[in-house]
Amino acid sequence: MATEGITPRAQDYSQWYIDICTRAELADYSPVKGCMVIRPNGYAIWEKMQRALDDMFKATGHRNAYFPLLIPKSFMSKEAEHVEGFAKECAVVTHYRLKNDPDGKGVVVDPEAQLEEELIIRPTSETIIWSMYRKWIQSYRDLPLLLNQWANVVRWEMRTRLFLRTTEFLWQEGHTAHATDEDAQDEVVRMLNIYQRFSEEWMAVPVVPGQKSESEKFAGAKHTYCIEAMMQDGKALQAGTSHHLGQNFAKAFDVTFQTEKGTREHVHATSWGVSTRLIGAVIMAHADDRGLILPPRLAETQVVIVPIFKKPEELAKLIQALDAVKAGWEGHFTWLVDDRNTVSPGYKFADWELKGIPLRIEIGPRDLEKGQVVVARRDKERGEEGQKTFIKLEDLAVEIPRLLEAVQTNLYERALAFRRDHSYEISSYDEMKAQIDEKPGFYYAFFAENEEAEAKIKEETSATVRCIPFEGQGQTGKCFYSGLETSRRVIFARAY
Amino acid sequence: MATEGITPRAQDYSQWYIDICTRAELADYSPVKGCMVIRPNGYAIWEKMQRALDDMFKATGHRNAYFPLLIPKSFMSKEAEHVEGFAKECAVVTHYRLKNDPDGKGVVVDPEAQLEEELIIRPTSETIIWSMYRKWIQSYRDLPLLLNQWANVVRWEMRTRLFLRTTEFLWQEGHTAHATDEDAQDEVVRMLNIYQRFSEEWMAVPVVPGQKSESEKFAGAKHTYCIEAMMQDGKALQAGTSHHLGQNFAKAFDVTFQTEKGTREHVHATSWGVSTRLIGAVIMAHADDRGLILPPRLAETQVVIVPIFKKPEELAKLIQALDAVKAGWEGHFTWLVDDRNTVSPGYKFADWELKGIPLRIEIGPRDLEKGQVVVARRDKERGEEGQKTFIKLEDLAVEIPRLLEAVQTNLYERALAFRRDHSYEISSYDEMKAQIDEKPGFYYAFFAENEEAEAKIKEETSATVRCIPFEGQGQTGKCFYSGLETSRRVIFARAY
Repeated sequence: MATEGITPRAQDYSQWYIDICTRAELADYSPVKGCMVIRPNGYAIWEKMQRALDDMFKATGHRNAYFPLLIPKSFMSKEAEHVEGFAKECAVVTHYRLKNDPDGKGVVVDPEAQLEEELIIRPTSETIIWSMYRKWIQSYRDLPLLLNQWANVVRWEMRTRLFLRTTEFLWQEGHTAHATDEDAQDEVVRMLNIYQRFSEEWMAVPVVPGQKSESEKFAGAKHTYCIEAMMQDGKALQAGTSHHLGQNFAKAFDVTFQTEKGTREHVHATSWGVSTRLIGAVIMAHADDRGLILPPRLAETQVVIVPIFKKPEELAKLIQALDAVKAGWEGHFTWLVDDRNTVSPGYKFADWELKGIPLRIEIGPRDLEKGQVVVARRDKERGEEGQKTFIKLEDLAVEIPRLLEAVQTNLYERALAFRRDHSYEISSYDEMKAQIDEKPGFYYAFFAENEEAEAKIKEETSATVRCIPFEGQGQTGKCFYSGLETSRRVIFARAY
Repeated sequence: MATEGITPRAQDYSQWYIDICTRAELADYSPVKGCMVIRPNGYAIWEKMQRALDDMFKATGHRNAYFPLLIPKSFMSKEAEHVEGFAKECAVVTHYRLKNDPDGKGVVVDPEAQLEEELIIRPTSETIIWSMYRKWIQSYRDLPLLLNQWANVVRWEMRTRLFLRTTEFLWQEGHTAHATDEDAQDEVVRMLNIYQRFSEEWMAVPVVPGQKSESEKFAGAKHTYCIEAMMQDGKALQAGTSHHLGQNFAKAFDVTFQTEKGTREHVHATSWGVSTRLIGAVIMAHADDRGLILPPRLAETQVVIVPIFKKPEELAKLIQALDAVKAGWEGHFTWLVDDRNTVSPGYKFADWELKGIPLRIEIGPRDLEKGQVVVARRDKERGEEGQKTFIKLEDLAVEIPRLLEAVQTNLYERALAFRRDHSYEISSYDEMKAQIDEKPGFYYAFFAENEEAEAKIKEETSATVRCIPFEGQGQTGKCFYSGLETSRRVIFARAY
């Protein structure tokens, strides 16, 4: 059953996604091309994500810092691959002043206030950060240096989509420096594991961890690890990346350290990040035609209480009964009471379903007589078994957290089952080409890595190598494209 | 007693401030003119500030959102005073792509990627936010709209100073919309009160709340309220502002709502903000010639423990004794153990004093025999009465929080006494002119507001009207400049 104003997924998946974003008031289009506004309902999800990730970063020894938004243009070209990857999408600051338009109304750029060297708005911060690391890192005692930054970045995108791809987005970017290649490698894996844990335990989105192919890795990295999630249309969404940068940036910015033995060596680097696109992943993984479905651990409000009443006295009694028990809920779950008398209970149900609140408590005068309430789960269809249960008022403090946990688990398992049902082992490229339109999903195949073939496959099927999953390596087989013997097994999919 | 590398305040106050910022690793200069890097020790203070303020904002019904960094140039000129105030310090984005320099190495701005309309990096977000409010506000039911944003902003400053005035800075900006002027006024006062409470209870910095004079108010506001703090050199620092914007932005962006009676009216607005300059305020209010002094409520690490040992076995025993009690400290205070064996205890003492940790625990083998430790307070001079106390190991969980509270209170009271000692009631301008060089501070005077006189006074003394304090109004007297009868009593001071 669809909610008014939401295009059903089966009809138009892209429009359904936009409808959820705008109607649940998660985001809105701004007057600036490609830039979005994150509305309070959307930002609340990001705050929950930030808190959880930040705690995990700190528990693994990282500290936060803040580096400038603006980067001298010349910095971008210090690392050859890096500039190749980012130069084409940089917003450039050329002037630092406006003045009144001499010809009339409004303001114009003051031509006399031109910068000597143009500044780039950071598309990512490796260059500015490594220019500082040069100053801060002298000795092995300064290593490892484990910093993270929560920031906005700008990448000039031609085709944008709310949360998933916007010109400006919010993210965190970790930038670490290590004495050895092994230490850097450990860090890259550690952070990917944190991303996987966060995605699965908080977002309830199962992911496949793996390595990026050469053509998909980060511009300037030795290699890139990633986690890939499957959306409800069978497309892949890259949910986080962790890059081993080798000594590339250390060499570009001449960052060396004195080893314990007294020699001087270049530092080894990593960087890793996740962004507000994760909000898009949560929507696309769980939402349905009635609206958003929030995993309880990311929900600002976990329970909405709808008193069912006709007369004000009835409402007063219901509120009184709730007041008597709700002190005991503090710290167990978060809730709000929707006591509006301008709209019907049915309207309220639809409204909070649209907004994705995981549980709804309904309580009317008759429930009150029996000392119980109805609890409805957002993750189940209306009328589906287990969607509604009766719970005694005094048991809510214990039963609601249990139900929230059940919703969290169910969302994860449902997404996992969906992924399983849309994952295919294939041995021939023709097979994938023939079926990917009708059966979008993850195509596992042996593939002898070859950039030319990869480009051709992308052109013909829109599918790319999402990753070389860690799991299932160590065997050999025939490349599904060339027939060559290879030990490399990859996932092909269309991606956001 | 000064710490190596820190210029004493008496010798050069400005250099002392820079030394504290850089040597305590709070901030560093970046390669981009006027932009700073906030290092982890500095950012940790900002995180504490954010958490405390954010909790207070949410407790008063505000929610966070995020609006674009980039603003169309034309938006700036929609509100006449606003553009006057900000046009001269705007960073302007004119292009969206770099390309390889055809003449050789590096990259250049691609002239073909010029924007049709230039974009401004937000110096503040009224314009972009009110362009969205137009869409979101239709009816009285949509009001009040109480949003806040944590963000970076850019104002092109010619003379910058770490934390206090930088081209880019971090801040929060609240932007609210109300049905009536009174509601907006209540909000402006409510938020100023929150700022005062935060400054005094968390930063331990007493402030004077008041109203800005016409020449110092926000560009586009009906009136501006502020809190003003006194630094150790007697100069004023504006620590927060709260603006009543009247209907100016609602009219500029045509934001109207349907009233309960069915009429259409323009919305009433407020905005309010504090920034990373508060970190500068904390430094300048409390630090001494040995380094930073952090108010305990803003200290990431509140207690540093320095074991005093010669042999590794001694250290092992001390650590064992600490391990036995420290489980009980969790939730009461935060600590770290400095068990480095490469530097002396004296070096460690100076190092943590420099970094401003409020309390230091010293524990050696002899203390251990007696089951006690020495606790040293950072807010007292070495050797000053009460600087060091002996506390039983098992009493730390109770006694340390008490001491932290005592440090917090002492810092506040000391700053308050300093302000009292450097505040002057004067009745003649000549008197202020003669003494402000030697006795910098707050000069309370009756002043018949007059922009010309204010400009003249600024030119002659560098002092400006910091605020018209709420306290002490309601009397009349003779203007200290013109001799005219006036009911306006103001504070003149030199300011950051």
